[in-house]
Amino acid sequence: MTERIAIIGAGPSGMAVLRAFESARRKGAQIPELVCYERQSDCGGIWNYTWRTGTDEHGEPVHASMYRYLWSNGPKECLEFADYSFEEHFGRPIPSFPPRAVLHDYIKGRIVRSGILPYIKLSHTVRSVTFNKDTQKFTVAVKDLVNDRISSSEFDYVFGCSGHFSTPNVPEFPGLDKFLGRTLHSHDFRSADEFAGKNVLCVGASYSSEDIGIQCYKYGAKSVTFSWRTKPMGFKWPEGMEEVPLLEKVVGRTAYFKDGTKKAVDAIILCTGYLHHHPFMEDSLRLKSRNRLYPQSLYKGIFWLDNPKLMYIGMQDQFYTFNMFDAQAWYARDVVLGRIKLPPRAEQEADIQRWTEKEAAIVDATEAIDFQTEYVRDLITPTDYPRLDVDGVAKTFKRWEHHKMDNILTYRDQSHTSLQTGTTAPAHHTPWMKALDDSLEAFLNQPETKAAAE
Amino acid sequence: MTERIAIIGAGPSGMAVLRAFESARRKGAQIPELVCYERQSDCGGIWNYTWRTGTDEHGEPVHASMYRYLWSNGPKECLEFADYSFEEHFGRPIPSFPPRAVLHDYIKGRIVRSGILPYIKLSHTVRSVTFNKDTQKFTVAVKDLVNDRISSSEFDYVFGCSGHFSTPNVPEFPGLDKFLGRTLHSHDFRSADEFAGKNVLCVGASYSSEDIGIQCYKYGAKSVTFSWRTKPMGFKWPEGMEEVPLLEKVVGRTAYFKDGTKKAVDAIILCTGYLHHHPFMEDSLRLKSRNRLYPQSLYKGIFWLDNPKLMYIGMQDQFYTFNMFDAQAWYARDVVLGRIKLPPRAEQEADIQRWTEKEAAIVDATEAIDFQTEYVRDLITPTDYPRLDVDGVAKTFKRWEHHKMDNILTYRDQSHTSLQTGTTAPAHHTPWMKALDDSLEAFLNQPETKAAAE
Repeated sequence: MTERIAIIGAGPSGMAVLRAFESARRKGAQIPELVCYERQSDCGGIWNYTWRTGTDEHGEPVHASMYRYLWSNGPKECLEFADYSFEEHFGRPIPSFPPRAVLHDYIKGRIVRSGILPYIKLSHTVRSVTFNKDTQKFTVAVKDLVNDRISSSEFDYVFGCSGHFSTPNVPEFPGLDKFLGRTLHSHDFRSADEFAGKNVLCVGASYSSEDIGIQCYKYGAKSVTFSWRTKPMGFKWPEGMEEVPLLEKVVGRTAYFKDGTKKAVDAIILCTGYLHHHPFMEDSLRLKSRNRLYPQSLYKGIFWLDNPKLMYIGMQDQFYTFNMFDAQAWYARDVVLGRIKLPPRAEQEADIQRWTEKEAAIVDATEAIDFQTEYVRDLITPTDYPRLDVDGVAKTFKRWEHHKMDNILTYRDQSHTSLQTGTTAPAHHTPWMKALDDSLEAFLNQPETKAAAE
Repeated sequence: MTERIAIIGAGPSGMAVLRAFESARRKGAQIPELVCYERQSDCGGIWNYTWRTGTDEHGEPVHASMYRYLWSNGPKECLEFADYSFEEHFGRPIPSFPPRAVLHDYIKGRIVRSGILPYIKLSHTVRSVTFNKDTQKFTVAVKDLVNDRISSSEFDYVFGCSGHFSTPNVPEFPGLDKFLGRTLHSHDFRSADEFAGKNVLCVGASYSSEDIGIQCYKYGAKSVTFSWRTKPMGFKWPEGMEEVPLLEKVVGRTAYFKDGTKKAVDAIILCTGYLHHHPFMEDSLRLKSRNRLYPQSLYKGIFWLDNPKLMYIGMQDQFYTFNMFDAQAWYARDVVLGRIKLPPRAEQEADIQRWTEKEAAIVDATEAIDFQTEYVRDLITPTDYPRLDVDGVAKTFKRWEHHKMDNILTYRDQSHTSLQTGTTAPAHHTPWMKALDDSLEAFLNQPETKAAAE
């Protein structure tokens, strides 16, 4: 009987798994039956935009944390698939920092052209995953959201690809219950327009805070204040933006910080990160981790130590994204297909231990980039994933980090060079701070066309 | 072996069930073992206020739809428990329309004084309920949110008391994805303060819309526009408030309505109601209904037709609330205790059919009140629930409806008479439109005390 694989989620990670198996099939391999469950009505995972917040039309938690006007905050050259370049997809070179719709088009394009959409059951949310030791099979219960029906079936392998930037981590601060302005988590941030003219407080000092704060500034916020817990981001902020220590309490409309300073604010955006939240996994299968480069209990960052028939993709804190998910998917696929043999558990544990110690010694972003570069290299070496110049990617990441430190408002105007095609990206027709239209059409329009249309 | 009962939810409905059984126990009856699972960290269900929206600190959907400054929109005399009066709880008569914190204190007070808190497992969310035909038992899987552990146990009966005003019904309107203001569902409405000076659009023509619109007006909104689908509410709106037909589309910041009119708005609040959402119930146990006075498939509005060991409390559209849940709980308890015998299924179906036809013939609020009055009377007649003067309650409801039609901004300044104590409520120390502080302390303060404190 053909083996069966359940893939939970059709975002970048789940699509990587589908693509990896399909690639083997096209080269003549026998592959298991694939069923990919996606709770949203489209694939693309977190790259789907919806105006909805809270729960969706079926009463299920809104998955995507995406907001309007989001442009890639890393160079597209660092996330380019080794088997499908941006140039191939768009038919010509495009600038290094595309907006959301362009990236969604790119990842979805690979899926459509690969013919693997039929594996995906959209609007199907996984309710529970259990493992039966006697039969050595997983039971996966799934709700068909459109038809309001729950059904279960058995699988030999399960891939957890449901992401970990979907369920907000929302700390409590004294006084929020009586704050006279608006409080929201970055997960529910949708449109910077509504913060025009406002004093905005972003709590947090990582990517969400940085990007949402800059967005609010770009679209006319009166001021943006960032509040940090561990250390400030340290960019050169323009007039109207500043960093302060952690929020201590809120009284009326006034926010008080740990250094004794205060500020009147209209909105508090909690850019406080996300939880690893896999509520459908039974206790013995459920990954529990903070957001880190090497989550515990996953051999090679993929295989659930207690039961390697369960694989998690993309559960790392991420510099590398799409191509790292590919590297993981290709490796996992080769294990499932028997091309790579997993070592005994003790060896797996020792390997995890080595990586974990290495992670613990990291002191800055450069070392974190090197760590993840080595991790990706380790995964792609034994598979037939097309050559990915990870050293080139690492170099590009570091160049990008320098650009950010130079000027946080203009780093997206820089051009990087594709490691796949060797092409250096053209400059965008409009500096990012003035590019207010984030549509695919506006982005791909040549200046002439744009001028003609105006 | 003692029979076991699982009660899902420790809101007004679940607490009614606990109270019903405890009341029998105190009178000497043998009662089954009771376990009540509550996903929030406090009992009181929807009467808990939280500043959070979306998901809570455990990544679970926020249950409560409660907002700041919410005052009861119906007379407290209509929801008073027959076995525990407001006067008994507060030690003196209080005005007819208390704010949220006062009602929460009242319902929780009964629970605390009854000594039934130990039955309640707080921060425990039910993950699944299934029924085994062979053993005739339910398996209930529960997640302990604080300790992040899932466990299952078996029960002879299950009470579904998780409410149906928690999961928003959120329709789509063209253009919402590019609306330049804020869009939210009433479930996520928290504080009217942030809409001061804004043009607010409330989509919907029922209680949420009415109350949130009036609140925004009270706290300084520039204008409030209500958009109706079926028919307008028809109250005498003051300058700055108006009703228009259904929203057709949104372009930029402009809302277009079905009658061809348009209005520039800053915020769109979708007061579009709630879904019956019982995601943990297996298909064969799951109630599917719109919000109506007599949901299908529930004999006496309580017993799941296909398996009457499953009982749902409070699943009706509601004029009657707390005391109706009591009436249901007392009746259900007596069935469980063998004091009332359920008729054969054919008779149950015929009974449901009679009520459903009656409901279909209702033409206005007065008839709806009469319908629910008769329903409650039918339930309490055969039990030992203390005498509840349902005709008196119905009369009070109708008086209240008249007050609303007379003046939607002042109906909360009226005094009604308790059907339990015969006391006519004192007037509140401040007209509702000027009562900006909704705390329990402010409400209970006598004018003298208040003046002295100022």
